[in-house]
Amino acid sequence: MGDKAEVPSRRSVLGWGGAGLALGAAAAGGTVAALGDDGDGTTPVAESGAAVPFHGKHQAGIATAVQDRLHFAAFDVKTKDRAELIELLKEWTEAAALMTQGHPVGQGAYGGIVEAPPDDTGEALGLKPSRLTLTVGFGPSLFDGRFGLEGKRPKALVDLPKFPGDNLDPARSGGDLCVQACADDPQVAVHAIRNLARIGFGKVAIRWSQLGFGKTSSTTPDAQTPRNMMGFKDGTRNIAGTDTENLRKHVWVSEKDGPDWMAGGSYLVARRIRMNIETWDRTSLKEQEDIFGRTKGEGAPFGKKREHDEPNLKAMPEVAHVRLAHPDTNGGAMMLRRGYSFTDGTDGLGRLDAGLFFLAYQRDVRDSFIPVQLNLARRDVLNEYIQHVGSAVFAVPPGVRTDSDWWGKALFSEGA
Amino acid sequence: MGDKAEVPSRRSVLGWGGAGLALGAAAAGGTVAALGDDGDGTTPVAESGAAVPFHGKHQAGIATAVQDRLHFAAFDVKTKDRAELIELLKEWTEAAALMTQGHPVGQGAYGGIVEAPPDDTGEALGLKPSRLTLTVGFGPSLFDGRFGLEGKRPKALVDLPKFPGDNLDPARSGGDLCVQACADDPQVAVHAIRNLARIGFGKVAIRWSQLGFGKTSSTTPDAQTPRNMMGFKDGTRNIAGTDTENLRKHVWVSEKDGPDWMAGGSYLVARRIRMNIETWDRTSLKEQEDIFGRTKGEGAPFGKKREHDEPNLKAMPEVAHVRLAHPDTNGGAMMLRRGYSFTDGTDGLGRLDAGLFFLAYQRDVRDSFIPVQLNLARRDVLNEYIQHVGSAVFAVPPGVRTDSDWWGKALFSEGA
Ligand code: HEM
Ligand code: HEM
Repeated sequence: MGDKAEVPSRRSVLGWGGAGLALGAAAAGGTVAALGDDGDGTTPVAESGAAVPFHGKHQAGIATAVQDRLHFAAFDVKTKDRAELIELLKEWTEAAALMTQGHPVGQGAYGGIVEAPPDDTGEALGLKPSRLTLTVGFGPSLFDGRFGLEGKRPKALVDLPKFPGDNLDPARSGGDLCVQACADDPQVAVHAIRNLARIGFGKVAIRWSQLGFGKTSSTTPDAQTPRNMMGFKDGTRNIAGTDTENLRKHVWVSEKDGPDWMAGGSYLVARRIRMNIETWDRTSLKEQEDIFGRTKGEGAPFGKKREHDEPNLKAMPEVAHVRLAHPDTNGGAMMLRRGYSFTDGTDGLGRLDAGLFFLAYQRDVRDSFIPVQLNLARRDVLNEYIQHVGSAVFAVPPGVRTDSDWWGKALFSEGA
Repeated sequence: MGDKAEVPSRRSVLGWGGAGLALGAAAAGGTVAALGDDGDGTTPVAESGAAVPFHGKHQAGIATAVQDRLHFAAFDVKTKDRAELIELLKEWTEAAALMTQGHPVGQGAYGGIVEAPPDDTGEALGLKPSRLTLTVGFGPSLFDGRFGLEGKRPKALVDLPKFPGDNLDPARSGGDLCVQACADDPQVAVHAIRNLARIGFGKVAIRWSQLGFGKTSSTTPDAQTPRNMMGFKDGTRNIAGTDTENLRKHVWVSEKDGPDWMAGGSYLVARRIRMNIETWDRTSLKEQEDIFGRTKGEGAPFGKKREHDEPNLKAMPEVAHVRLAHPDTNGGAMMLRRGYSFTDGTDGLGRLDAGLFFLAYQRDVRDSFIPVQLNLARRDVLNEYIQHVGSAVFAVPPGVRTDSDWWGKALFSEGA
């Protein structure tokens, strides 16, 4: 049960009524054992319907294989009571351990008392675990003093500077907490966020949320590179989930980096980047390729033949996106991109509200996202076709290791 | 090529550069032959990645197996020139025949002239056909006299009355044309609508559009019934795509019904129905089940054991949704439901903007949707938890039969 080899159906567990919780815990326990000594924190590529282990050294949803769909939610904490916030994080952890393994929350959607609302909202019953991962993060505002965490804010959790061209909507930016739900079935991702929001009712409220439908990067080097809404392969030169060396150097916070509670964690930058689709679609093929410095069909860097050939930056225009974003142009800066395409209908002018919901994980945003984005914001020719309209940054703690561990335990436990 | 048995990749065709168009036409031709004498207009359930034939007696996307994802777009016609509108419908038909078979539009995303914008936007390159169907419809406003179609408006294409409780947003209602894009991969559905919008640039503009992610009904009786955002199985008693008898009686316009150009077509009602998710989630299991007259787990009608047992209406509360919507309560009225769940982020108050994008096909809305919805709007207890916020109705013409046929040919050709 809950083992990667098996794909339990949410329905089959529920058939036993209130037994969901106990089973979930057992399943979770099993995966801890399996992952406990997994030094690099990566998970083998699971099949589309399978479950990804919840417990481990690092949170799943970062170096684990990218799923097809996203529901990302940023929350404001409404309660002023530290104990209530802690209680919520414990309840969330318990629910996340169940849902990621394909089980419903608590007593399930119909196994409980008929006079009470069901514990689980039910729309994921009968669906497979679908590789659901739930990844939590803490925003800078959580450390503002309401919860006695002032002294705990990591130095690396800086407020992002205002970049040239930013047109940020405060209603799509920031947040005290975030949960990134990724799954191969959107109904599973939406179900997870909804049930977490529901558990948090009165204590937290969704500040903004984003659905993503086409992954725009790959963390599995062998898979076909997905295309973004501009029609280009995206994620060719990304940090792979199996690239232990670069994960260690550029993604995971080390014990030396501090603070202690972040060791094994990472920092997440989220940017909602809208594309001027209609303008882009009237741009010539040549101009499109010049903008990226790669061909549209194969995705090969200029002057080379194949997608995965080593880029020769000098063969690209100086202001090409790939040249400006490349580590060699940024003192070796690298990050793990894990973004999704979005299409949120149309705006009042009949234009598609579509683009890239950019997500990047890194060991320190000051050495990765910030310098690269400064470079891009100043010079990238791509800027004519995009606009950053939402922004947030979060400290993503390490993984939950055991059944008695919970999201943020180390943060809330040490002194203060 | 393009045969159901094979699953051509968009990439493989594109590899031959400009040959996409010719190949597409050949593939389409092949499917015409296969479907030509398919009397009941249904298609065998295709595998998830496969192509659904575009040509046939009826448009695909109605009685064909329901795919997992939706992108629905309503368009305003901007041109006042009848000939230009006809030209557009021809171009759309050609593009639809290609895209549904897994081919890019025109010369493809990189096979054409480098100094010109590519014919296809490219984000579906390398993706499978994913059972994409594109279904066109004509709204009442198309017959207002701008295009000489005043005399052609079908009697059954009535303006829907205002129902009690309606809270319709004009910006999410109506439209001269609609295209329903369904596919198992959302990127394929979004790509199709985007490329049609692009072909129509200057002649039509998207008025509103809706993404749907979890189908809420099934037209394949053997498949597992999907659950809607209220956690209930939805589509249990739907008209199946193989139920020739009920399709003929309740879905397809017959030659007798008139007008001639609609024979083999159907009428589509689209309603964006928002759910008060937060209120629903605090409702007891008993109340939830009373509202529908079915159990939440199994989906069995009250007093029966199994989902597909024949409902005994008397065992349900008089105001239960299923009792009120049942044919026996509505003089035998039936329709083919083909809706999708939606979650469009959160509203300004932190509440999920989620619900059901209700789509129903029928032979005559005056005998189906209108009486049933009048009944529901007046008495359904479900109304405490939902609100209709968008509405549209369309005449959906019969299928495109041959390569020289196009969407609306019969409408625009006969006299007037
Ligand atoms: C809508 C906005 C964006 C689009 C459409 C886009 C698209 C692309 C594409 C097509 C590539 C080449 C394929 C690859 O190696 O993945 C690429 C590479 C890259 N992009 Fe972006 N990108 C966008 C925004 C950003 C942002 C905001 C950042 C970070 C600040 C970024 C960082 C990178 C990096 C680091 C690479 C790899 C460079 C290399 O090592 O060769 N991109 N992007
Ligand atoms: C958010 C709004 C709605 C929800 C959540 C909903 C949900 C359901 C559910 C759970 C069932 C039982 C399973 C089944 O047989 O499919 C059902 C049946 C049905 N609904 Fe709805 N429905 C909604 C709106 C509507 C509307 C607007 C109509 C048409 C005006 C409609 C027409 C029907 C019909 C005809 C049946 C089958 C009744 C029977 O033959 O037993 N529903 N609905």
